[in-house]
Amino acid sequence: LYAVIMAGGSGTRFWPRSRESKSKQFLNIIGKKTLIEQTLDRFTPLVGRENLYIVAKSGQKAQFRQFTGRIPRSHFIYEPMGKDTAPCIGLAAVILQRSDPDAVMAVTPADHLILDLPRFRKSILAAGQLAREEDTFVTLGIVPDRPATGYGYIQIDGGQGSFYGVEAFRVKTFAEKPNVETARSFLESGDFLWNSGIFVFRASVYLKAVEEHLPDLYDGLCEIREALDKPEYPRAVQRVYKQIRSISIDFGIMEKTSNVLCVRGDFRWSDLGSWEQVHKLSEKDGQGNVVSGDAVLVDTTQSYVRSDGGVVAVLGLDRVVVVQEDNVTLVCRMDRTEDVKQVVERLKRKKLDSYT
Amino acid sequence: LYAVIMAGGSGTRFWPRSRESKSKQFLNIIGKKTLIEQTLDRFTPLVGRENLYIVAKSGQKAQFRQFTGRIPRSHFIYEPMGKDTAPCIGLAAVILQRSDPDAVMAVTPADHLILDLPRFRKSILAAGQLAREEDTFVTLGIVPDRPATGYGYIQIDGGQGSFYGVEAFRVKTFAEKPNVETARSFLESGDFLWNSGIFVFRASVYLKAVEEHLPDLYDGLCEIREALDKPEYPRAVQRVYKQIRSISIDFGIMEKTSNVLCVRGDFRWSDLGSWEQVHKLSEKDGQGNVVSGDAVLVDTTQSYVRSDGGVVAVLGLDRVVVVQEDNVTLVCRMDRTEDVKQVVERLKRKKLDSYT
Repeated sequence: LYAVIMAGGSGTRFWPRSRESKSKQFLNIIGKKTLIEQTLDRFTPLVGRENLYIVAKSGQKAQFRQFTGRIPRSHFIYEPMGKDTAPCIGLAAVILQRSDPDAVMAVTPADHLILDLPRFRKSILAAGQLAREEDTFVTLGIVPDRPATGYGYIQIDGGQGSFYGVEAFRVKTFAEKPNVETARSFLESGDFLWNSGIFVFRASVYLKAVEEHLPDLYDGLCEIREALDKPEYPRAVQRVYKQIRSISIDFGIMEKTSNVLCVRGDFRWSDLGSWEQVHKLSEKDGQGNVVSGDAVLVDTTQSYVRSDGGVVAVLGLDRVVVVQEDNVTLVCRMDRTEDVKQVVERLKRKKLDSYT
Repeated sequence: LYAVIMAGGSGTRFWPRSRESKSKQFLNIIGKKTLIEQTLDRFTPLVGRENLYIVAKSGQKAQFRQFTGRIPRSHFIYEPMGKDTAPCIGLAAVILQRSDPDAVMAVTPADHLILDLPRFRKSILAAGQLAREEDTFVTLGIVPDRPATGYGYIQIDGGQGSFYGVEAFRVKTFAEKPNVETARSFLESGDFLWNSGIFVFRASVYLKAVEEHLPDLYDGLCEIREALDKPEYPRAVQRVYKQIRSISIDFGIMEKTSNVLCVRGDFRWSDLGSWEQVHKLSEKDGQGNVVSGDAVLVDTTQSYVRSDGGVVAVLGLDRVVVVQEDNVTLVCRMDRTEDVKQVVERLKRKKLDSYT
């Protein structure tokens, strides 16, 4: 089993902690370690360091240098630009197949939070076993604990149950982020799980599906395969990435494929999509506040206050997010943290790019 | 006429802009110039630079050095420690009398805002004329435009009107800061004015009142007078200030004296007591916001946002104050800005004194 960590994200939702030069996976949003370190720690015992691969963008090379002692240099796969997950996984599949035509790959975002690690490992190993036995895609679905509107859902066929000794379900449909009524009905039905964005399959299975559903991408990947280990490799990747369109594995492959199984993950998972989610998932004090760094809160409740390099004081407010990173500060109503990207866009328009 | 600017205040209400090392009068809170510069500009045309005196604390000498080109060095009067306004004015009176026994002095706080300068000057000149003609105290009362609870009030005897050709009133009582019902009745009665903290009188009249009402202070001032122009002067001031008690001119003299006249000032005045007041007095944009420095406001109204050295973003909030000074940030509900001193106290308790 190989782990392919998709670490090319940029993400503006955690501004001002996340910046163009420091993306979300390099932040220690929950816990002391950064999200990418947590992801590496999560997969290393499962696949061994020799089977860990990281896909990132060329522009992020400097940031990844810190991991070169831990992961062989050849296991960093750089894309010249972001084209969403389908090409990213395709590139990794081509590279894995070069040395191991039967490679089974677990692809995962680099910047999610997972608690209950033993359960997580059990799910990944089960998914890996299924993917090894059969020409199938395996996805990890998370048992929802609330009618979340920020996640995609997977509808499973409750009738099925066991494949090769592993508890799994046939996937009926993938559903986009629902509105709250739909989310409630999903939760009540009991056969909808959150789409974790973690997939397990053989590289060959993936590439065959790309050939069928995304022929342009397949042609590009073949061109890259031809150039592997040759001096023209960088130019080939550059040329292909310029031409192919951005498309996700969910939309481009999963929704069009019938042979998808789902392993039900009963571990705690979050995509950490906003400061509000971080507040929800963090341990709170008696006033419902999450505070880190030098901060003073007076008559303030249900808030998330973080100061890195400096001090923050909050007086008389409830349900706010205040994040200070040196001399850059975000002050946001708790239920508006999804819109932090608007702030980043506005900064760019105001020629304050240096703060983004 | 001499102007005596009482500039020894420290003030924590404008934290984080005001600090132990940078008191309110050195801030450009409204307008480009600092409050002390505005005060100097206000009085220079009235008394000439040769008649301007500043009373401050010894610890502030370095901050006042910037004005030494503008005001003779001998016109800076330093107190070894703060003992409120009665001793401060007494020390200035003794020093003015040394060269001009008939000196008429206008004493004024250094950190207030005054608009409508021609009207202000007219009031001061009228008060000066009265103080020169008669052994009387003259105070400047401000016509109130709302039932403010943050100011002291002066009740005038509406029956009187003209003294030596100047429109003025006998003062019946000085009233402490009222609650809102009392403030409303004051406003309705029409014979209550705000106490501006600006007084005009002959130095000799003041010292005579001190002799009568504050004999301990009078003894101390005599001791200082004996030491004037002698090497023991600094030690004498130090010794006297250690012994005398803190007491304001309002409480120690004005409330006990019957011969007080009041000139009615119809200029706009504010003691700038909080960020909320600054917001009220500043020009607002279409959303009711006052914004300065690099800031981005999204769906935010009726707020005061200021950034000095850095950037601030506010998203989805109404009626908040956000003030960032480098890497120190205050976030405060608009109607809680009077309590900013609680934040400063809390910072001290948390050993974060370096930020106060």
